[in-house]
Amino acid sequence: MIKKAPPHILIIGAGFGGLETARRLAKAPLQITLIDKRNYHLFQPLLYQIAIAGLTPSQIAYPVRSIFRNQKNLTFQQGEVEQINFEKRYVKMNGSLIAYDYLVIASGGQTNYFGLDSIQENSHELKNIESAVAARNHLLSMFELASREADPEKRRAMLTFVIVGGGPTGVETAGALAELIRLVLSRDYSQLDLRDVQVLLLEATDHLMGNYPAELSNATFELLRRKNVEILLSTRLAGYDGSRITLGDGTQIPARTLIWTAGVKASELADKLGVDQAGLGRIKVEETLQLPGHPEVYIIGDSAYFEDGHGQPLPMLATVAQQEAATTVKNIQRSIQGLAPISFRYKDPGLLATIGRNAAVARIAGLSFSGFPAWVIWVVLHIYRLIGFRNRLLVLINWAWDYVFYDSQVRLITAE
Amino acid sequence: MIKKAPPHILIIGAGFGGLETARRLAKAPLQITLIDKRNYHLFQPLLYQIAIAGLTPSQIAYPVRSIFRNQKNLTFQQGEVEQINFEKRYVKMNGSLIAYDYLVIASGGQTNYFGLDSIQENSHELKNIESAVAARNHLLSMFELASREADPEKRRAMLTFVIVGGGPTGVETAGALAELIRLVLSRDYSQLDLRDVQVLLLEATDHLMGNYPAELSNATFELLRRKNVEILLSTRLAGYDGSRITLGDGTQIPARTLIWTAGVKASELADKLGVDQAGLGRIKVEETLQLPGHPEVYIIGDSAYFEDGHGQPLPMLATVAQQEAATTVKNIQRSIQGLAPISFRYKDPGLLATIGRNAAVARIAGLSFSGFPAWVIWVVLHIYRLIGFRNRLLVLINWAWDYVFYDSQVRLITAE
Repeated sequence: MIKKAPPHILIIGAGFGGLETARRLAKAPLQITLIDKRNYHLFQPLLYQIAIAGLTPSQIAYPVRSIFRNQKNLTFQQGEVEQINFEKRYVKMNGSLIAYDYLVIASGGQTNYFGLDSIQENSHELKNIESAVAARNHLLSMFELASREADPEKRRAMLTFVIVGGGPTGVETAGALAELIRLVLSRDYSQLDLRDVQVLLLEATDHLMGNYPAELSNATFELLRRKNVEILLSTRLAGYDGSRITLGDGTQIPARTLIWTAGVKASELADKLGVDQAGLGRIKVEETLQLPGHPEVYIIGDSAYFEDGHGQPLPMLATVAQQEAATTVKNIQRSIQGLAPISFRYKDPGLLATIGRNAAVARIAGLSFSGFPAWVIWVVLHIYRLIGFRNRLLVLINWAWDYVFYDSQVRLITAE
Repeated sequence: MIKKAPPHILIIGAGFGGLETARRLAKAPLQITLIDKRNYHLFQPLLYQIAIAGLTPSQIAYPVRSIFRNQKNLTFQQGEVEQINFEKRYVKMNGSLIAYDYLVIASGGQTNYFGLDSIQENSHELKNIESAVAARNHLLSMFELASREADPEKRRAMLTFVIVGGGPTGVETAGALAELIRLVLSRDYSQLDLRDVQVLLLEATDHLMGNYPAELSNATFELLRRKNVEILLSTRLAGYDGSRITLGDGTQIPARTLIWTAGVKASELADKLGVDQAGLGRIKVEETLQLPGHPEVYIIGDSAYFEDGHGQPLPMLATVAQQEAATTVKNIQRSIQGLAPISFRYKDPGLLATIGRNAAVARIAGLSFSGFPAWVIWVVLHIYRLIGFRNRLLVLINWAWDYVFYDSQVRLITAE
């Protein structure tokens, strides 16, 4: 009797979706190849902490080979996908072909500038370690420059920090930056007048935090205001030349810093595959997360277009990707057993966002929290979710230190 | 009665010499301006730990403004010195002039390639955070590349790591890299044959560790050999094209990695000042560390040329710079009081170098140690010397973790 080779599962992307897929298949009798452009998994929800010098990159990035060191059925390969041939079932990368029996595309998302080139060219984004470190270097350099600038107008422009996007990332960045300035930088640059410093949060709609209940949106607004963040709602950005932002109504605001958190879209890979795409470049999938016409291909996470019960696409969040990974794993296993796939159903686990030191907003099990209780929930959950025990411990020590001493350790300006 | 303005001390460089000078003047009734290209002090003796993914940059770099937050007589300014006018007593930087009463030049050193351009272009150095991170990215990328390279010759070249220079930096780098490979990377890349991996240490003289006693040089040799480092003594490097090294006798060794630790010289600034320089571009100073003809200017550390009792220049070491700082501070204070300056005398505090996990060599109070006792001394002293309590704690946790679990946390390949 000839022993059949175990099925080969190829997973593209070591983000939340790809990682969850690989882990859930740890004990399955199959071969897994996980590929990613980077050699590490990035805990993106804390990326803004890199930008505000609160954490160091290795505290939120974890080498993929470490994570899967003990998972014997998995091989990792670093590289960029050049081509996918759905008919012949192979992926081309690093100059060679990798055949698959099942393919899971979890290639994530990228920043969406909605065609506003001037913003793309002159702003900072929080999408990967390099861009977050660049934002940190820029923020801190502005304080160095301002500390020796005699012209008050130029100085104010250096000390005006504009964050665009009133979703969780924008809110967390604005809150944390305001605190970094008030508690840490104000002591490092004691000769600077804090009244010259401004943190501005711009949001195009008339409320913060997207589709969450009004009480959370209002609590967020109040908490940010108390931390000296200026909030401009119903304000659209028209352009940015690196020294002044232009609003939709033509108003200009001098500012040397703009952090863009107002848009995401599917990864570049989604555009290269020649498949049907919906809004934001996301790939249309079946109810079962399969690619139409290719039941052996699954698309999950930011790159997948899947509507909730109300005709709205699911948001680009780690929890969506992880839940989709769970269904994908079930469906692959059902397919191997000759069973029909099941449909995906998203369960909203709620919302959690910090607004700096000891304040947060949370929506859990239909209940809204804000202020200190929400902050404690946030700290505990995020540290728990960070991969690897040591990371958790180091992050905890870092934060405990900051909390007690109002310090912030990572204020290094490195060369780009 | 008119109150006289306090004397203004300008210190160039926030390395070991500049930092020590500033700290020792903390309680003096004078104004200090400390300037540096970077916004942080770098604990250079541990830079090689960044390159071998053992520590993260923020664990060995500390923001200058943090260090001096409570020192009221000090102002920090980040920037590069454009010009020094010794006659008119000012320094030009960031487009403006800073006048001084006393000037302390502690601008450090830079890598010396002895005119070997091919090496400068194709090798890695351990001189600053950026170069050490670049070395880390390169080392780890070689393992990623080798893991998918079918050609055995190309693979061996990817896994041949050449370190040039048998002084403390070269020895520590070679030992730590050999251990990283044996204990950590061997598990991350379990499909690679470890016999393809080679760590080569090249030294031009016939012994390691420079001028220290033969028993230490021999102990170092033995400890490195036991960690599978190949040592080539009396071997001079003639060139490197990025894929093969050429030795002085014409031998070629295929190797994709070369880390150059074999030379240092005075900083660029020393060349720009139009003053008398001795070997390695170091500036000739009086016995009192004053610049000849300019008693208000002191030169200390790597940029100063000062002979010991035997006609040999003092080595470019942190301890030399720190002791010179102490004498400089005394002499500035004596000058303010109208007293004659004292001469500098160097007291050799000994030598300490690790050779990876639980092995080191040490020379303290005329006694030589090697092996585990020397390693314990090294760990305790280095952690103690790291600035800032939190850094010490984080470094300690990092090392304790590595020691127990043979792990290494910072194995991130970031974009350069």
